This record gives sequence, C-alpha cells and structure tokens, in this order.
Amino acid sequence: MSLTDHLTRYLPRIEDEMKALLDIDGELVRHYGMMGYHLGWLDEQLSPDQEIQGKRLRPVLCLLSCEAVGGEVEHALPAAAAVELIHNFSLIHDDIEDGSKVRRHRPTVWKLWGQPQAINVGDGMYAAAYVELSRLVERGVPAERSMRAMYTLSATCLTLTEGQYLDMAFEQQPEVELENYLRMIRFKSAALIACATELGALLGGAEAAVVAAYRAFGENLGMAFQVIDDILGVWGAEDETGKSASSDILTRKKTLPIVYGMRDPALQSLFGQEEVGVRDVPRVVEILERCGARAYAEQTAEAYSAQALSHLEQAGLDTAAHRAIGQLARWLLGRTF
Amino acid sequence: MSLTDHLTRYLPRIEDEMKALLDIDGELVRHYGMMGYHLGWLDEQLSPDQEIQGKRLRPVLCLLSCEAVGGEVEHALPAAAAVELIHNFSLIHDDIEDGSKVRRHRPTVWKLWGQPQAINVGDGMYAAAYVELSRLVERGVPAERSMRAMYTLSATCLTLTEGQYLDMAFEQQPEVELENYLRMIRFKSAALIACATELGALLGGAEAAVVAAYRAFGENLGMAFQVIDDILGVWGAEDETGKSASSDILTRKKTLPIVYGMRDPALQSLFGQEEVGVRDVPRVVEILERCGARAYAEQTAEAYSAQALSHLEQAGLDTAAHRAIGQLARWLLGRTF
Repeated sequence: MSLTDHLTRYLPRIEDEMKALLDIDGELVRHYGMMGYHLGWLDEQLSPDQEIQGKRLRPVLCLLSCEAVGGEVEHALPAAAAVELIHNFSLIHDDIEDGSKVRRHRPTVWKLWGQPQAINVGDGMYAAAYVELSRLVERGVPAERSMRAMYTLSATCLTLTEGQYLDMAFEQQPEVELENYLRMIRFKSAALIACATELGALLGGAEAAVVAAYRAFGENLGMAFQVIDDILGVWGAEDETGKSASSDILTRKKTLPIVYGMRDPALQSLFGQEEVGVRDVPRVVEILERCGARAYAEQTAEAYSAQALSHLEQAGLDTAAHRAIGQLARWLLGRTF
Repeated sequence: MSLTDHLTRYLPRIEDEMKALLDIDGELVRHYGMMGYHLGWLDEQLSPDQEIQGKRLRPVLCLLSCEAVGGEVEHALPAAAAVELIHNFSLIHDDIEDGSKVRRHRPTVWKLWGQPQAINVGDGMYAAAYVELSRLVERGVPAERSMRAMYTLSATCLTLTEGQYLDMAFEQQPEVELENYLRMIRFKSAALIACATELGALLGGAEAAVVAAYRAFGENLGMAFQVIDDILGVWGAEDETGKSASSDILTRKKTLPIVYGMRDPALQSLFGQEEVGVRDVPRVVEILERCGARAYAEQTAEAYSAQALSHLEQAGLDTAAHRAIGQLARWLLGRTF
C-alpha cells in the first residue's frame, strides 16, 4: 500500500473523529462553531464551508506510526485527533499572542469574534482534545498504556508553552544564542510531532525501543521541518509558501538564518534601524549569504533530516506503513530550498 | 478529628504538591514564576511573597471526600492539586477576557506582563494540571480508575468553557432566562466543585452510588455557593466580600437577583440608561426587594444548600472526614445574607 492509499484511508477518519466530538447543537452551537471555523469546516457565518483545512500532518504521522509497528488504526485514532486538536488550540492562542490577523487565507478567530471569545474557544478545543484522548479505553487500549499516552500528551503540552514563552521572550532580546533558538523550536514545534509519532507507536503496541526510535524520528523530523520553514521564510518562492518570502525579514522575525546572521555587525546595524523596508531586503539576503547563514541553516536542516531517517531505520521494521512514513518524511524534507 | 485538624493536615500538602511541580529553574524561571505569582507564592518581582493565596476550597473538598469514603489522601492528592491548577488557569484567562485588573488585592497576571504572556501562562498551568494528574498511577491508583479520573477532569474542563461562553454571550443580551442563567453557573462554577468531590470519592475507592452522591453534593454546594455570591454582590457588606457591595449593580452584571429583577419594567428602564451611577444604587436595591428578586435568590440558595446536605447524607457514611465535610459545607453556606 502506497502513501497515497494510507492518506486516502486516514484523512476522512480523522475528520469524522473530530467532527463527532465537536458536533454540538443548541445554545452552544456558536462555541463549537468557532472551533469548526478554525478547523476549516465552517465559514464566517458558521455555515458549512469548502473545507479549507490544515495538512493534518500530525494525525497522519500518528496513524502511520501505529500501523507501522503492527497496531490497529482504531487504537491510535483518539490520539491522532487529540494531537490535531492540541495543534489547533495552540494556533488559535498563538494568533492572539502574535496579533496575526490571517491564517490559511482567512481571518483568524480573534479577528472575527474578539480576543475574549477566541481565548475561550482555544481553551475549549484544548479540553476537547483530552475528552477525545479519554476514549482510548473504550476503543480497546489497555488502561495502563492509555495513562502513558495521557502523560505523554500532557508533558508535551507543557513543553509547547515553554517554547512559546521562549519565543516571546526572544522577541524582546537583541541577540539570541543559536543553541537557545534550537531549543525553542524543539519545544515549540518539534515536540508535538515527536508526540504524534511516539503515541502512534505506543498505542500500536510497540516495545519500548521502537517507541523511542519513533519518537526520535518525529522529533528530528520536526526540527528539520521547522528549519526548512525558516529557510523558506527568506529564500522560498511565494507561490510555494503562501506568504511573501521577505516577510520574515520585514518583521525581523528571529528565525534560524537571521539568528545566525545577527552575529554579523552589518546585519546588526541594519536591523538596529527604526524600520526595515522592502528596499532593505536584497541587502539583508546578501548579508545572510555572505556571512554563511544560508549554508549553516541548510546544513542544519540536512543534519536533522539525516538523523530523522536514521532513527526510522533503527526501528528495524518492514511494514507498508513504515515504508509510507519514510516516503512522507522524504517528501516533507524535500521541499525546495 | 475536627475540620480544623483536617485543614491543618491538608493545606501544606496541597501547596507542596503544586510547588514541587512548578519549581523550575533556569531560562524558564519567569514562565513558572508568573504561575507562582498568580498562586500567591511570589510577588511582582517574582521573589517569595507573604503567600496571599486563594482559599484552596476545591482541593480541600477533594481530599475530604477521599478520606470520607475511607481512601488514602496520597491517592487523591494529584487530583486535588490538578483541580486547583485548573481553577487558577481559568481565573488567569477569565481575568483577560473580562479585563479585570485586580485579583486578591493584587494586579492580575495580564496587567503585569501583558495579554500574550498571560494567555500562555494560563495554558502552561492547564498543562501542568494534567502532568500532575498523570501521577495517579505512580501514587498507587489503579490505571482504570486513573483513566476515569482523567475523563472526569477533561469533561469538566470542556464544561467550564461552555459556561464561560454562555456568560460572555449573556453580556450581549438584554434579557436572560432564569433557567439559562442557572445552567450557566452550573457549567462555569458548580461543575469544578462537583468534579473535586467526585474525584475525591472515586480515588478514595468508593462504590458508584457513593461517588454519585458526592458529585451531587459538590454540584449543589457549588450552585448554592455561587447564588450566595450573587446575593452578596448586592447586599453583602464590603468588609466581608472584599469588594464594593454595589459593584455588580454599577457594572450591570447579570447575577441571579438582577436577572430576576430584569423582568420588572422599572429595572429594565433604569438599566436601559446610558450609565448606572452610585446614586442609582438605592433605587436598584429597592426595586430588587420589591419585585421579589431578593426573596427568590435567597430561596434558591437555600434550596441548593438543602439539596447539597441531603446528597451528603444519602452517601450514608460515618467517618470523621465525612462529618468534617458537612461542617465545611454548613460554614460555607452560612455566609451572612
């Protein structure tokens, strides 16, 4: 079975699982409707939409990991849905914290319904993720294993807030150590992908060494994925990334190449200006290339990619889903830069 | 053993349990420090404070319920701490949503560190509650029972957001049905107290009927408690409630007596004015007394109090902790009005 076959089987089940949980009528229809809007099922009037959704990358990785180790999709489905709900809750809150007005080409929840409701909608989605994960036992997962899954998700959620704390703290600092930046993205981005693959393998019934290998695979994949995103934020083509390639430069966002480049006095003085405008962009790009920031970021992405694939190999499996997850990883990591 | 003996034993253990969880050093010290500030352990500079804390009512009820049914405090302690952390996470977010600048005579978290950090600090405390609850198994609670506790807390957290949604929605409506108001406070306030007593009894190893009786006790206690709070918001003495007795009138806050009174045309027209000032307060109070709002609210509080105590009796227990919880309930419900 190819990766496409797996995706065709998984994606509707992931949506159905989340929709069944959030399909609430009556006076609370707007509370859950705002969640449905963020998840891409409803439009601004909370009527059914064209389903402009996220990639559902994390739940797909979770289900693939479960099947790769020989488990039943049914057993990992509550975890897959829970991880996607946690991802989306954190996006709703991040959008408020960053003041982001647009996500996936539509207004963000807070932009449409105000910050108070948006904070509460995020909290509701957070709670819904745990109600979903509580279903593990009724799906036939042993209670001890279910409790391990509960702990894994909970520790991950705490790590996500640590990452977000560091990210916001870094915005206030003139300079950030590369090591600290990498720790921040490990917490904020890689942790939830690691959680997805770990939970999949755990709930699929894998032994501890295989669970650990899948977790390490997910974590390195997440690191590579984020670093590639950082590279595309400077050198990506707009039609691939959906955002202006120079936007990270204009906002002086602390991404890996920029954190590296800030050790160069030329970039320091340029970014020390009142404002960074469109006409400064070519100069910034030139500095980043000259000082080795681009090469460093690309090598870093490749190192994490290699690590990810090596951990996957370490798991020593030979199932169709295991091959499919390798295929997915190579596709994700092969994004042009 | 008296109620005071129980409180003397419990309170330091509850604090220690939460402090051990949140005692994080290094670069994340501020993230956890803001949590410690909200919990009353630290001051604005994040130095140790005089420990101005909340009442810790929910964790105390949880531990009393556990011991009342013959359980070990140790087994309920993670749930007690988790419930208190959930309560406090929801306060941090509510303060942002309501724009409240002061809590327990100190500036709120968002007022000191801004909304973005405050949202994230709340999320972190939410996650910490679940990390804490994940400890049930290592404390010797069977995994199946731990999973039931996980579900109970999760369903409660979802209910809290439903209550908060309704509360915010009601603020936009000219009139609210009494039934809908009571449902809102059941979700927003009573649910977490019901959760505390249910979890205590469950983790104490009680049979299903006793767990249900303890839950019903907690829910009715929570309802009575909130209605009494509503009454004190209009007729309470400032030195008892810590806030001006007329503040609920000045902000036209939809509390039970006011929701009842809004069926009277006199209050409708008074509250229909541009602004409600201090000189309107005696007139509002007079209308509320004349139209029967005060009597209705007092009867409602008494009915819930009676229900609470009857459910407690239903549990059919005769332990020191069971008697102490009755004592606590009577003390809570006896607040002057």
